Amino acid sequence: MKILVLNSGSSSLKYQLFQMPEATVICSGLVERIGLDNAEIHYKSKQFKYDVIENIPDHNTGLNLVVNLLLDAKNGVIKSTDEIEAVGHRVVHGGSTFSKTTLITNEVKDKIKSLFSLAPLHNPPNYEGIEVAESIFTKAKQIAVFDTAFHQSIPQKAHSYAIPTKFLEEDKIRLYGFHGTSHKYVSEKAIEFLNTQSSKIISIHLGNGCSMTALKDGKSIDHTLGFSPVNGLIMGTRSGDIDHSIIFHLVNNLGYSLKEVNTMLQKESGMLGLTGFSDLREIESEASNGNKTCQLALEMNAYRIKKYIGSFTSIMNGLDAIIFTAGIGENSSYMRQLVCADLDFLGIAIDLAKNNCRPKELTEIQTDNGKVKILVIPTNEEIEIARQSFNLVNN
Amino acid sequence: MKILVLNSGSSSLKYQLFQMPEATVICSGLVERIGLDNAEIHYKSKQFKYDVIENIPDHNTGLNLVVNLLLDAKNGVIKSTDEIEAVGHRVVHGGSTFSKTTLITNEVKDKIKSLFSLAPLHNPPNYEGIEVAESIFTKAKQIAVFDTAFHQSIPQKAHSYAIPTKFLEEDKIRLYGFHGTSHKYVSEKAIEFLNTQSSKIISIHLGNGCSMTALKDGKSIDHTLGFSPVNGLIMGTRSGDIDHSIIFHLVNNLGYSLKEVNTMLQKESGMLGLTGFSDLREIESEASNGNKTCQLALEMNAYRIKKYIGSFTSIMNGLDAIIFTAGIGENSSYMRQLVCADLDFLGIAIDLAKNNCRPKELTEIQTDNGKVKILVIPTNEEIEIARQSFNLVNN
Repeated sequence: MKILVLNSGSSSLKYQLFQMPEATVICSGLVERIGLDNAEIHYKSKQFKYDVIENIPDHNTGLNLVVNLLLDAKNGVIKSTDEIEAVGHRVVHGGSTFSKTTLITNEVKDKIKSLFSLAPLHNPPNYEGIEVAESIFTKAKQIAVFDTAFHQSIPQKAHSYAIPTKFLEEDKIRLYGFHGTSHKYVSEKAIEFLNTQSSKIISIHLGNGCSMTALKDGKSIDHTLGFSPVNGLIMGTRSGDIDHSIIFHLVNNLGYSLKEVNTMLQKESGMLGLTGFSDLREIESEASNGNKTCQLALEMNAYRIKKYIGSFTSIMNGLDAIIFTAGIGENSSYMRQLVCADLDFLGIAIDLAKNNCRPKELTEIQTDNGKVKILVIPTNEEIEIARQSFNLVNN
Repeated sequence: MKILVLNSGSSSLKYQLFQMPEATVICSGLVERIGLDNAEIHYKSKQFKYDVIENIPDHNTGLNLVVNLLLDAKNGVIKSTDEIEAVGHRVVHGGSTFSKTTLITNEVKDKIKSLFSLAPLHNPPNYEGIEVAESIFTKAKQIAVFDTAFHQSIPQKAHSYAIPTKFLEEDKIRLYGFHGTSHKYVSEKAIEFLNTQSSKIISIHLGNGCSMTALKDGKSIDHTLGFSPVNGLIMGTRSGDIDHSIIFHLVNNLGYSLKEVNTMLQKESGMLGLTGFSDLREIESEASNGNKTCQLALEMNAYRIKKYIGSFTSIMNGLDAIIFTAGIGENSSYMRQLVCADLDFLGIAIDLAKNNCRPKELTEIQTDNGKVKILVIPTNEEIEIARQSFNLVNN
């Protein structure tokens, strides 16, 4: 069975075609800068690689270009779009409506739409990806895999806010948690590696969005992102945790509109707001050339992560392993080093030589005596979405 | 030298008259429910106790009633208001303007006024207390002791938010920290008790407001309250930490005004919002009678404290002692027990028998083998304010 996995962002479309249940990748790629000048399409199969700048005004055009490559008489991998039996879509916010992977119907689409306000950067392009896929893969089952679903195990004392209970009961305002597909994937890898029934793990996903999950015996019991994906760790352009009174101060005393403040916190804050750069590689390079603002921002970023490592260690009353994953987590030795420095009280001791890696598979980087395993595990949200979609189709 | 210490709240006025430098209390008391029915005045000296329900429409009336008691021909403690050489005022928010105890001038008053918006529940009544005291103790030096001053040692990586740097540089938006007078007082007691030069201490102030400070070698290096005293721990009516996107959601999607949301987070949240009660004693009593909502709220409260214990332990890379102080911290054995449960990984182990106390002086409540000292230390912000005022007058 062939399953296409789509992760549709505001100006990008990541895709991977899987042969299931083997979970072998038939082809994969990315359409990026959709709607902008110099949009690009990338495609890679066993025998064919294609990277071209194209005019791609919208997601529909983008996905149709991908489909043309899939169907290509010479280099293609399918003869008809009907060969694809299911399309698995990443959907960021499932609210309190979706606690598991779900077959997409019109009713489901309406519900996903009603959650736009909870994840305004993410749910609308996810939805657009669904509509485009429906129009192209008319015979396929469309399946939604929610980032929030994995965190439904977080207990009430951790997912509730200390605001009047009616907001939880009537308006479903609570911590949902995100990047669930990634945290699930890497934590399962870690547990398999640790080879134990009971485990205390902290998973640190550092990409464009950043989050951490406390995992007890494989279950998410707490998480840094909350009601929508904005708080917790410092991200590329998102502030992470702030004192919420700042919002009132900016509007009431400094004359900003609420909309301006929201935009500022979502798009102009985080590493960008602190340094003027949003790409961590650039910030690291600046810092290593003596840019003190960039150095401070990296330290703030690592400091926040350290605080949550302590926080999650305390609620689990112990720690067996921490996992670094996603773009920054897998590739930035420097960030891993900053995070792990001076945490030997918790049993964390990084081996700097081992840390000098960008591994393609699970790699340990703690010292020989380190009590806590420090694992770098490349995440693979696509394979996780493919597996969950396959299981849904077959049950 | 006689120094009067005033802590002026929105409907209350706490006072203590000290003989300095011995720091003996000549008399002390409280005016409460100012402006409400059944306002009360309390006064206590060595030989005289006075507790009366009076008509007290404003702070001016309240303080004048206190002064009448001080001057009382038979039971009074002074012959003339001129005997009082200084009045030390608690002022909650010193912003970035005040980093230490300050002699109050008209210019200082203007600056305190300009900080009203940062602590709307606190700075205005503090200011009113100053004006009333100036009109009565015309010869005394008026001195402001700021809750924020003790936290000026918090380094930039901990006091900065990940928002555009102009907000820090131009608008002074940063973490300030509060309850500094209390954290300073109890941590100095603890350090004296530990009898060590280098120490890693977490001070937990649980009163109407609640906050925690990480203290390395006696200096505040991080703190749970931030820009204004609303975030961090769950308080009587304040939410503590929330995902800030909730504010945008309530206004943009659920039709609340920004003012309603602010009021809700300051006055209708916290333990009140979760349980309907704001007095912790009542909540504990309800919980022990099987009220599950109250039990959950207590667990949420303790859970948040536990998370910050872990957080602060990680940034100090160790822990020598935790301190419980203020109304709840000193008196609620149950809250202390909930907080300390299941933290033995960090070296925290509470002795339940020893914990069954409401001590009048520093008391250890860890088990005999407990690596981390668990100390209950009654706070005394008044004596700290008197000392700082005395030092300022004499330098």
